[in-house]
Amino acid sequence: AAESSQVEATPPGSKAAYETLEVSTKDNITKIVLNRPKVKNAISTKMYDEIVEALEEAAKDDSVITVFTGNGDYYCSGNDLNNFTNLPANGLEEMAKNSADMLKDFVDHFIDFPKPLIAVVNGPAVGIAVTLLGLFDVVYATDRATFHTPFSKLGQSPEGCSSYTFPKIMGVSKATEMLLFNKKLTAAEACSQGLVTEVFPDQVFQKEVWARLKAYGSLPKNSLALSKQLMRSMEKEKLHEVNSQECECLKGRWLSDECMNAIMSFFQKSKL
Amino acid sequence: AAESSQVEATPPGSKAAYETLEVSTKDNITKIVLNRPKVKNAISTKMYDEIVEALEEAAKDDSVITVFTGNGDYYCSGNDLNNFTNLPANGLEEMAKNSADMLKDFVDHFIDFPKPLIAVVNGPAVGIAVTLLGLFDVVYATDRATFHTPFSKLGQSPEGCSSYTFPKIMGVSKATEMLLFNKKLTAAEACSQGLVTEVFPDQVFQKEVWARLKAYGSLPKNSLALSKQLMRSMEKEKLHEVNSQECECLKGRWLSDECMNAIMSFFQKSKL
Amino acid sequence: AAESSQVEATPPGSKAAYETLEVSTKDNITKIVLNRPKVKNAISTKMYDEIVEALEEAAKDDSVITVFTGNGDYYCSGNDLNNFTNLPANGLEEMAKNSADMLKDFVDHFIDFPKPLIAVVNGPAVGIAVTLLGLFDVVYATDRATFHTPFSKLGQSPEGCSSYTFPKIMGVSKATEMLLFNKKLTAAEACSQGLVTEVFPDQVFQKEVWARLKAYGSLPKNSLALSKQLMRSMEKEKLHEVNSQECECLKGRWLSDECMNAIMSFFQKSKL
Repeated sequence: AAESSQVEATPPGSKAAYETLEVSTKDNITKIVLNRPKVKNAISTKMYDEIVEALEEAAKDDSVITVFTGNGDYYCSGNDLNNFTNLPANGLEEMAKNSADMLKDFVDHFIDFPKPLIAVVNGPAVGIAVTLLGLFDVVYATDRATFHTPFSKLGQSPEGCSSYTFPKIMGVSKATEMLLFNKKLTAAEACSQGLVTEVFPDQVFQKEVWARLKAYGSLPKNSLALSKQLMRSMEKEKLHEVNSQECECLKGRWLSDECMNAIMSFFQKSKL
Repeated sequence: AAESSQVEATPPGSKAAYETLEVSTKDNITKIVLNRPKVKNAISTKMYDEIVEALEEAAKDDSVITVFTGNGDYYCSGNDLNNFTNLPANGLEEMAKNSADMLKDFVDHFIDFPKPLIAVVNGPAVGIAVTLLGLFDVVYATDRATFHTPFSKLGQSPEGCSSYTFPKIMGVSKATEMLLFNKKLTAAEACSQGLVTEVFPDQVFQKEVWARLKAYGSLPKNSLALSKQLMRSMEKEKLHEVNSQECECLKGRWLSDECMNAIMSFFQKSKL
Repeated sequence: AAESSQVEATPPGSKAAYETLEVSTKDNITKIVLNRPKVKNAISTKMYDEIVEALEEAAKDDSVITVFTGNGDYYCSGNDLNNFTNLPANGLEEMAKNSADMLKDFVDHFIDFPKPLIAVVNGPAVGIAVTLLGLFDVVYATDRATFHTPFSKLGQSPEGCSSYTFPKIMGVSKATEMLLFNKKLTAAEACSQGLVTEVFPDQVFQKEVWARLKAYGSLPKNSLALSKQLMRSMEKEKLHEVNSQECECLKGRWLSDECMNAIMSFFQKSKL
């Protein structure tokens, strides 16, 4: 997908030109930066596609670990609700089907990613940017980060395998408060519940985390990849099954009155 | 099961007349109150049956969430040991079989309950009142609550799917101390181990919890029910299998010398 | 395996004479002491065999619970790397196959152990001595204890079912930092992550723990054994499958350049 006309424009170590991402490799680390800071790194349809592409490239390159982070104040504000406004010719049903197919493929790439995958959560995270963290191997967060999954407020249901990974990580009683009842966690809460590996003061966040990641990048590559695959292999089949069920459920949700009313209300408020 | 002669006697919003429960619906919340405060809400055979009936009604009514709580100082002191003193005609073996069948059906109703199920733990909880919490979606507790499962002291073994849910929630090393070695947890401990979602000071417990529940009751009903079912569906089959195994194990325990000696000793002490 | 010529030399209550262990039964507790304090209780090939034998005996004896602990300052420094220096006639491949077979059988004995199994972690624990803790039912630790699994530093991969039990106990984000990125935990960290049941100040560690264990030893034997088996039965098949996969992965690792270079470097450093 590299466009040759762009090659000169990209900084040293950077990969194919992306519209919505900045991707580069250094110190055995492939770094994927969500790069739509003006909209808090909301994930547009284009960004979904480009993340899939970046994951496929990172899986094959020489790097030892792969890191996700966000550009600007936010880590990621989740699914861009504008994705719901471009109705295809056949209307809502086709949009729901297309969106579910895209989401399933997107999440499958996280389930199958063969190397250690690390999130550097540089600010607030919302929706699918939170649920996907359950599929990362390590999650470092600034103390400015928050974790919010307001699915039921939008008449929706959990994705990113969170209906399985969150109860496993934090127990069903804490997972339900997040996934059904819209509780927003601080970084400290997310850490004590096991969703986040460690929290750092914002002033030293980037420095301390990248020093640590550089050390990880110097460890034996195959040992790390095989160990990660070992941990994942025990539940890979289950995760794919969960992903399918979640996308099927969401497809129904997107066609429901509860969801449509909530999304219309969202856009009406944002116009005021 | 509503008895028409009782309809006038029940308060507004209340359901069928129950002997051992108080059941009512308000603000989209069906509230099931364990109502044998003189015996610390111990679960008699009658109460087992009525809880099953109340769950079946709550599953079908218009409420969004269903809440369990206790009347008086205790949440629930667990299985009423007097259940073991009414021997049927065919003696111990039939009693063990009947009790295991009843317990299996009772727990199955919690596994299959289709809406968010919330426990408002207003005081100490013992035995099956504790183990069942692993099948609730959210557990709020007063700081006066304690959590105690003294199975081995009575020669028994864990039920309510706790042999599966507790290790999943808190790890095997903490679950074993509770389920095998009779450790009683404070509310704070139960919360830090993930069994309880959040603990509240007793003075503000009812006020703060019910404000929160009222807000939950106003969320989109289908979104919540489908999200809960999604989370449960991943392990529903496993939970039914665990329930069967636990009841089979208990049936054997109830006929064992270890158990009979412990229960006889309990009644001898309580007569002094 | 008892050698009759040794019977007189062993203290009262002690079992068959072991070279690398001290095994005795008292107060319904069978105590297995790792007894190579000069090498920090590193597990030699001989010790692997003797632990298997001691577990088989403890499974059959009259004790109610079985306890592991270490002699001296360390609990156990893990696999004795000298195990890798005695090459059999057919060289590396045969050594890797023999080691994987031995490890699989060793871990299988922990998976299948039928009584409550308790670790009294009297000091630092390393490698397989840490990973196996996920198969214990209760883990008590002195505040001097640390928990370290530097697999990737040696080009290796996790064993003892830790690739399954650690994510289950502490969530994948904390498990990965230990198992892939060599993070050493303090006793307090291991406890807050659920790997350790409770931590005690070193001065009172032995006294408080053994008082508690003595109380456990007086509980109904069958109730405890059946309750433990109930908890284990839900995942026994899975654990055996995980153990097989981990040993297969390690067999490949032991023949890899990454691992051989790391082990040679270890011995060169230790000669300086």
